[in-house]
Amino acid sequence: MSSKDEALYYHQLHKGKLETTVKVPLKTETDLSLAYSPGVAEPCKVIYDRPEAVYDYTLKGNTVAIVTDGTAVLGLGNIGPTAALPVMEGKAVLLKSFAGVDAFPICLQTTDVEKIIETVKLLEPTFGGVNLEDIAAPNCFEIEERLKKELNIPVFHDDQHGTAIVTVAGLVNAVKLTGRRISDCKVIVNGAGAAGIAIIKLLANYGVQNMIMCDSKGAVYEGRAFGMNPIKQEVAKFTNLRKLTGSLEEVIKGADVFIGVSVADVLTKEMIATMNAEPIIFAMANPEPEILPDEARKAGAAVIGTGRSDFPNQINNVLAFPGMFRGALDVQASDINEKMKQAAVEAIAGLIHEDELSSEYVIPNPFDPKVAPKVAAAVAQAAMESGVARVHVNPNDVKARTERLASRK
Amino acid sequence: MSSKDEALYYHQLHKGKLETTVKVPLKTETDLSLAYSPGVAEPCKVIYDRPEAVYDYTLKGNTVAIVTDGTAVLGLGNIGPTAALPVMEGKAVLLKSFAGVDAFPICLQTTDVEKIIETVKLLEPTFGGVNLEDIAAPNCFEIEERLKKELNIPVFHDDQHGTAIVTVAGLVNAVKLTGRRISDCKVIVNGAGAAGIAIIKLLANYGVQNMIMCDSKGAVYEGRAFGMNPIKQEVAKFTNLRKLTGSLEEVIKGADVFIGVSVADVLTKEMIATMNAEPIIFAMANPEPEILPDEARKAGAAVIGTGRSDFPNQINNVLAFPGMFRGALDVQASDINEKMKQAAVEAIAGLIHEDELSSEYVIPNPFDPKVAPKVAAAVAQAAMESGVARVHVNPNDVKARTERLASRK
Repeated sequence: MSSKDEALYYHQLHKGKLETTVKVPLKTETDLSLAYSPGVAEPCKVIYDRPEAVYDYTLKGNTVAIVTDGTAVLGLGNIGPTAALPVMEGKAVLLKSFAGVDAFPICLQTTDVEKIIETVKLLEPTFGGVNLEDIAAPNCFEIEERLKKELNIPVFHDDQHGTAIVTVAGLVNAVKLTGRRISDCKVIVNGAGAAGIAIIKLLANYGVQNMIMCDSKGAVYEGRAFGMNPIKQEVAKFTNLRKLTGSLEEVIKGADVFIGVSVADVLTKEMIATMNAEPIIFAMANPEPEILPDEARKAGAAVIGTGRSDFPNQINNVLAFPGMFRGALDVQASDINEKMKQAAVEAIAGLIHEDELSSEYVIPNPFDPKVAPKVAAAVAQAAMESGVARVHVNPNDVKARTERLASRK
Repeated sequence: MSSKDEALYYHQLHKGKLETTVKVPLKTETDLSLAYSPGVAEPCKVIYDRPEAVYDYTLKGNTVAIVTDGTAVLGLGNIGPTAALPVMEGKAVLLKSFAGVDAFPICLQTTDVEKIIETVKLLEPTFGGVNLEDIAAPNCFEIEERLKKELNIPVFHDDQHGTAIVTVAGLVNAVKLTGRRISDCKVIVNGAGAAGIAIIKLLANYGVQNMIMCDSKGAVYEGRAFGMNPIKQEVAKFTNLRKLTGSLEEVIKGADVFIGVSVADVLTKEMIATMNAEPIIFAMANPEPEILPDEARKAGAAVIGTGRSDFPNQINNVLAFPGMFRGALDVQASDINEKMKQAAVEAIAGLIHEDELSSEYVIPNPFDPKVAPKVAAAVAQAAMESGVARVHVNPNDVKARTERLASRK
């Protein structure tokens, strides 16, 4: 069976990947009278009097909506909400398997920003968190920003922040390995979509000052007269302060780090040769990277990461989002803020001891069972310290609970 | 522990009653590459080319949205969408336990008819069916009518049609037992909410001509100058054709059947004494019926049903809705139509053989495992015969599948 047929068979076997199951006994008339009428009236009345009790008596506190409009699905692009459903189910499967988070796909039959925002707000009673997924830029920025303000539950656009967290975690280790300080690096981010924007913002929070974002038209700088949008203008205010113009080939000279979230084959050996010695190359275009690892190595790259599982150093979001939501839910966080993202970066990077670090091991394996529990505990702690936690818990308990809940059939 | 404390403990133990679980293997890197990137792209591409394939590769075909605005929850009234969540989880639990249907609560933070309709339409890609729940009259009528027209998946307002189906099934057997023909009966329906309206409409489809609906202001008739709304006006066109006026006490004289979907204690022994001999009394107000069974029996009632499990003849919606959705989903029905409802009535009534019928057994027990499979098969067949089925299956297979899927932990 080809891998394509195998993927179809895998999805067809049980008609999808996710189901709902009952977690209470329901065998007798007494059980029925507790689960439904008349017993169910009791938690309803308590919640009516004290709305926060919804976290005690219902699924809300462990449940995340996976929201998409299907406009930017994997490498497939704008395939619409129905064709996007297998991906959203897959995301829910990962949240459950890696961190015990219940998640449910919400595929919306609209691409209208206002309608998406309003719909998610109307859905708030059922959910303890919102994961925005595969919504195209620039709509994704406004949707996330508005929902973060207007909802009382955490909102996380994984294509932005999940990618940024894992990328920066890998970079933290890569600079350590190559004897650099992250704040001294010259970094090129190639790609101005959701991931590129989030990476460059998170790097700014890490003190990186010398950064240039490139899009298909070359370096982005303040006042560029072509191909700009509000989010690129925002980025241009704190990057490329010398306003270098020109193509990737021109501005990459002397850079320490190349981060690609763009398309296949745009980085050449010749360009790498013009970078600083021992450059770090994260070529994350999927499925074909900006340059193949072998080529990058030949051109002198010291550390190479990609998005693929068949090369070393896979930059995979699954290292971040399950633990992120686990930690946020466990403290009933009202937001996912910068401190929580940084805590996730440190937790992921810190999983590899300094003496284990190598050019082929700057980022943990996606299946490393230590990752989600450590991320969850760190995120929960950061949420409590930064004042967005509604309940306080012991981070060690979060860790232990995540270990217990993570189950991979 | 009091039953109240027990109900709270039951809900608190696992924080709610429903979870999502993974139904595919997810242990290895290969599994991950099938469940998510890159393998997941294959079903996405097939669905993009051929949208109906969403039923083959995703959860859609087995998944129902339980939609509420929380305005008419059980006996609690307008408690809002958050406090309604335990009930919606309970409904999902019943659908799964009795018929293997995956269902998910959608509690909407609005009572605006247009917003509810639009939101459910936007959610259509994920769901194979919609169960409207605990939405107050008269909004529930417009929401259901519009959604039935504007969606391509079946829509069912259980408070209306579930109650009507089970009530009429019980009545079919009660008239048989008392030697009546249903079309000859004079029927009083006391209560003009969602259930009362649906019951009287379904009875009309069964050829009952002599019916009077009463609300808190007495008999409803065409042209009544007070307390009317569009739906009561519609009902008045085919009921109470002699335009009798006055209270329940006045119009119940000579009736064969009393169906109460109203409030406690509104029916007296004296009123029953004015009905025809051997009257049938379905007093379904919850938790306190319109008259207690003992009282009704003393006044001469031949058959008595209530909504309670601690009396004989419990009129419980769970006899209808799990099998209804199982049957509709199994043939990918685009609608739930009158033929399907009648098929459910006949299936439920027919489960009790004539020689088993007694005044205390006109309706099956909610836990009778034969009910949902039989209803599902009958509904699937009716859907195919009435032209709303997208796929054709053997009703015996639907029955066997329902038996297999129904699992009560």
